Amino acid sequence: MDESPFRTQAERIAQRQQKREAVLRAAVRMFNSQGFHATSLDDVAASLGVSKPTIYHYLGNKDQVLLECVTRGVEQLRAAADAAHAKPGTGFDRLGDFLRRYAEIIMDDFGRCVIRTADELLTNESSARFRALKREIDKAMQGLIAEGVADGSIAPTDVKLTGFTLAGALNWPARWHKPDGRLASEEVASQMVDILMRGLAPR
Amino acid sequence: MDESPFRTQAERIAQRQQKREAVLRAAVRMFNSQGFHATSLDDVAASLGVSKPTIYHYLGNKDQVLLECVTRGVEQLRAAADAAHAKPGTGFDRLGDFLRRYAEIIMDDFGRCVIRTADELLTNESSARFRALKREIDKAMQGLIAEGVADGSIAPTDVKLTGFTLAGALNWPARWHKPDGRLASEEVASQMVDILMRGLAPR
Repeated sequence: MDESPFRTQAERIAQRQQKREAVLRAAVRMFNSQGFHATSLDDVAASLGVSKPTIYHYLGNKDQVLLECVTRGVEQLRAAADAAHAKPGTGFDRLGDFLRRYAEIIMDDFGRCVIRTADELLTNESSARFRALKREIDKAMQGLIAEGVADGSIAPTDVKLTGFTLAGALNWPARWHKPDGRLASEEVASQMVDILMRGLAPR
Repeated sequence: MDESPFRTQAERIAQRQQKREAVLRAAVRMFNSQGFHATSLDDVAASLGVSKPTIYHYLGNKDQVLLECVTRGVEQLRAAADAAHAKPGTGFDRLGDFLRRYAEIIMDDFGRCVIRTADELLTNESSARFRALKREIDKAMQGLIAEGVADGSIAPTDVKLTGFTLAGALNWPARWHKPDGRLASEEVASQMVDILMRGLAPR
């Protein structure tokens, strides 16, 4: 049977979704490499060979694009926390799983954007939402640490301060790690988390 | 003997120096709490009950003030690295001493300003100088780690990656720690460094 020259509705929806993803990915990479202020949606459009109204059509204005980028990043982090939380094993093991995934996300496009985006770049309302989302990730990390302390697999520690110590160490690669650098992001994540987790083991 | 109503030259120089310090301290605190862009030298002058020309007289324009603030912070970090380097003991002990002092400086006015100042805030020339100064601190930290690996007091590790892990964790309090917070900066420094150093001990 010959293929129909007409796309089905499902194909049209899928194609629209793919285009939207391609536009969002191009935008987040440009924000990360050039900075938000220095990036115009014209540049993003040009890099994809489409018009600026096409970008607006798929994603809205530049503020809306940035909010979607950081929201994606935070949602990846939250999914990683949920997945780790649902695993069997000790609190120590679950925290380690989460931290490795956390570090990998931070070195990927949307996670990188979460860290590189100063709260002030967003409009007031979006900025409040962004900060609230980040606080949820802090809470999830602290919850995993507390579970490890409770089951004895993590040495007694100030849970909040420990969470900030881990997050600080693992957020930093969003600034210094280059996607084409000497070490792949998985390798960086693995080595950093090994150091940090050894510091949390019971003595 | 009655005190002379006339100040000696030494007194005048000392007093000028004290005034300059007071102005610089007021400026760095305002940069840290409000952000560089949102701070005017008028605000700094008003907070001290002096005129804006007085601020210019002591410190120059706002860019010059910021450059001096971050330079002070980096110099405190460098002095801490030099002091640790000159101490007796194992590389592990010297690195621990440095990191504790590093964290305390980062939570103090000038160190906080080093971390909170995005490179782009400075003029091109000052920004290049600022980045070069920060690279020196990275190198000093990596040097102390390498000495510990060499004398066997630190487990074999990727020196550069470990340096970035430690710096990331210890730079972060410049963003979240409040000078009047639940834990004093010395306590935060001590607990963070304990976790990090345990992670570096030989197994």
